[in-house]
Amino acid sequence: MADQYARNPARDESSMLPALRWEEPPEGPVVVLLDQTRLPAEEVELVCTDVPALVGAIRALAVRGAPLLGIAGAYGVALAGARGYDVEEAAALLERARPTAVNLAHGVRRATDAYRRASGQGAEAAARAALMAARELHRQDAEASVRMAEHGLTLLDELLPGGGHRILTHCNTGALVSGGEGTAFAVALFAHRAGRLRRLWVDETRPLLQGARLTAYEAARHGLAYTLLTDNAAGSLFAAGEVDAVLIGADRIAADGAVANKVGSYPLAVLARYHHVPFIVVAPMTTIDPRTANGAAIEVERRSGDEVTELPAPRAMGAGAGPTGPGGGLAIAPLGTQAYNPAFDITPPELVTAIVTEEGVVSPVSAAGVEELCSRSRQVTMS
Amino acid sequence: MADQYARNPARDESSMLPALRWEEPPEGPVVVLLDQTRLPAEEVELVCTDVPALVGAIRALAVRGAPLLGIAGAYGVALAGARGYDVEEAAALLERARPTAVNLAHGVRRATDAYRRASGQGAEAAARAALMAARELHRQDAEASVRMAEHGLTLLDELLPGGGHRILTHCNTGALVSGGEGTAFAVALFAHRAGRLRRLWVDETRPLLQGARLTAYEAARHGLAYTLLTDNAAGSLFAAGEVDAVLIGADRIAADGAVANKVGSYPLAVLARYHHVPFIVVAPMTTIDPRTANGAAIEVERRSGDEVTELPAPRAMGAGAGPTGPGGGLAIAPLGTQAYNPAFDITPPELVTAIVTEEGVVSPVSAAGVEELCSRSRQVTMS
Repeated sequence: MADQYARNPARDESSMLPALRWEEPPEGPVVVLLDQTRLPAEEVELVCTDVPALVGAIRALAVRGAPLLGIAGAYGVALAGARGYDVEEAAALLERARPTAVNLAHGVRRATDAYRRASGQGAEAAARAALMAARELHRQDAEASVRMAEHGLTLLDELLPGGGHRILTHCNTGALVSGGEGTAFAVALFAHRAGRLRRLWVDETRPLLQGARLTAYEAARHGLAYTLLTDNAAGSLFAAGEVDAVLIGADRIAADGAVANKVGSYPLAVLARYHHVPFIVVAPMTTIDPRTANGAAIEVERRSGDEVTELPAPRAMGAGAGPTGPGGGLAIAPLGTQAYNPAFDITPPELVTAIVTEEGVVSPVSAAGVEELCSRSRQVTMS
Repeated sequence: MADQYARNPARDESSMLPALRWEEPPEGPVVVLLDQTRLPAEEVELVCTDVPALVGAIRALAVRGAPLLGIAGAYGVALAGARGYDVEEAAALLERARPTAVNLAHGVRRATDAYRRASGQGAEAAARAALMAARELHRQDAEASVRMAEHGLTLLDELLPGGGHRILTHCNTGALVSGGEGTAFAVALFAHRAGRLRRLWVDETRPLLQGARLTAYEAARHGLAYTLLTDNAAGSLFAAGEVDAVLIGADRIAADGAVANKVGSYPLAVLARYHHVPFIVVAPMTTIDPRTANGAAIEVERRSGDEVTELPAPRAMGAGAGPTGPGGGLAIAPLGTQAYNPAFDITPPELVTAIVTEEGVVSPVSAAGVEELCSRSRQVTMS
């Protein structure tokens, strides 16, 4: 079941509510999510008391972004355990909630493995173990965020000596998708703090406008010099020489270095190549999926055409007397219009200048480079 | 002054209201426009009784599209003449209403020249001459539309033997921008009528959604097999081999063949080149401006950032209790967010496979090819 927390008007306006937290009120543990579908108009928290509610929130994109989906999946397993639900069933539900971001499955498996390992000591101990695994993943993701930002900024400074970086980004990759300050956005944020960010160009990211709604919100809170644009205006910026680098996140990185990310990333990669601009992917190691051989093997989620034929989030936007479509939004296309709505696209490795992770940078991007990074990471984990 | 005609519920639903017409009711002549900002939700006509109202409608995009802007400009001069306003002042106002589409200035000049030539015979005769020039331009544009569609379909069949064309288009280039059935859209329509259109991919065309609102509306009325997509999803279609050709219109074509068209056209040209897909521009001869040497010399209109930070056309969409921005729309980005909002972009000639006009096709696109077409056209006009 999902409930809502009222906004707390007394809270410090300069700080942001966490994207996700675990709470243990007297009536039982809950997963509390900042409802991202309502940002930036409203800061409303969604309280999930069971896994179906959490799965609903994941599908509706109230909680989203590859690293955060992994954390949400792990806490979902912990929630099922703590509330005495069937953990295996909960894990299966969570893992299927969205198909493209491999982090979700990774987070679910990590908490489920911990649960199984401790289940000999009873259900309560197993539930505690699952929660510990979720907390550990949450903490590790926050740490990874710092290291990705450091590696990313070093790489930027190498590629673009002289500072004053003008970075183009797509979708949202900040604190709203992470246990820390994010992936690609964290690099821009570190550049800003180091006085080396001249401008963050923010793609609005249709259809759900995560750039306009979420990245602009985070950029404004941190005082970054940012400018919003429609996705299709990026070409003009490249042509005018106004983009020094593209920085994006990833939802899955295949063994050969192909990158699945929010739809619109691939056209940016093609534009970047045409204009000789570095195209940099920033993602934690959990986004790399060695079991997916290449881009063609990545399942790309196709979402409802209503997201395209109707304007998003009318709930928060205040739908009035206008024409509403079957999806409940404000219809912008004639009724009956079919829409093609892939949530992600695939950028082949040859168009990616570098992949930045917490364990280091792969550049040029190749199967051998990705494999070398993965084995380095395994050694670090085992040592 | 602008007024509105009520919708006529008795009218045949399958036919479309004309985008622009001249009427002479007892209280004096008027220019009647189909208000394109309200489509597809409402078919409302805007009645302009003077040039400032028409200029307002042009700026607000109630009437838009390069060829139609030329026709509107010519009728605007005729309106000033017929109502006894200062024709030179009206012409100057109209010409400055939007800077990029050269057709507007062309239409204004054509009617003004006719007015001046006949002004020796008195103001009434001069006004009649301006009106005749506007009507002639209107008729010629309709004819040009047929010839562009024929040339365009022949070219498509040559480039893509076997038929079953899957065409991607951007913005709106149909009857809503033309005295006839349009430019690029007319080619798709002719392919449809000839049984050779497999699919029309319709870019939604942010920020003002002319693709979703207007092209989908025209495609639906004509029974085309069409699918809407966000502009940034076009990359996935190219990568999947689902696009056989890109067909777009133009707002100005420079002497070297550089094409100014709705923002988002240039990224499509880069994607088309990367995927070896023909990129075809369809425009009447009036769109070619030999006095503009190249793309860099084309003035690109920058429009208000509100078009990006707020959702469009809330008037027709029914704005309710949601947060409204300074532009009066529904705010989607944090208040104070700056936006980069060029209305057009420039595609260099080397990325354009062919320019299709009523006088023939230029391919490959070069200054010499454009010049040759222009001189051929002048010979036809003089003969």
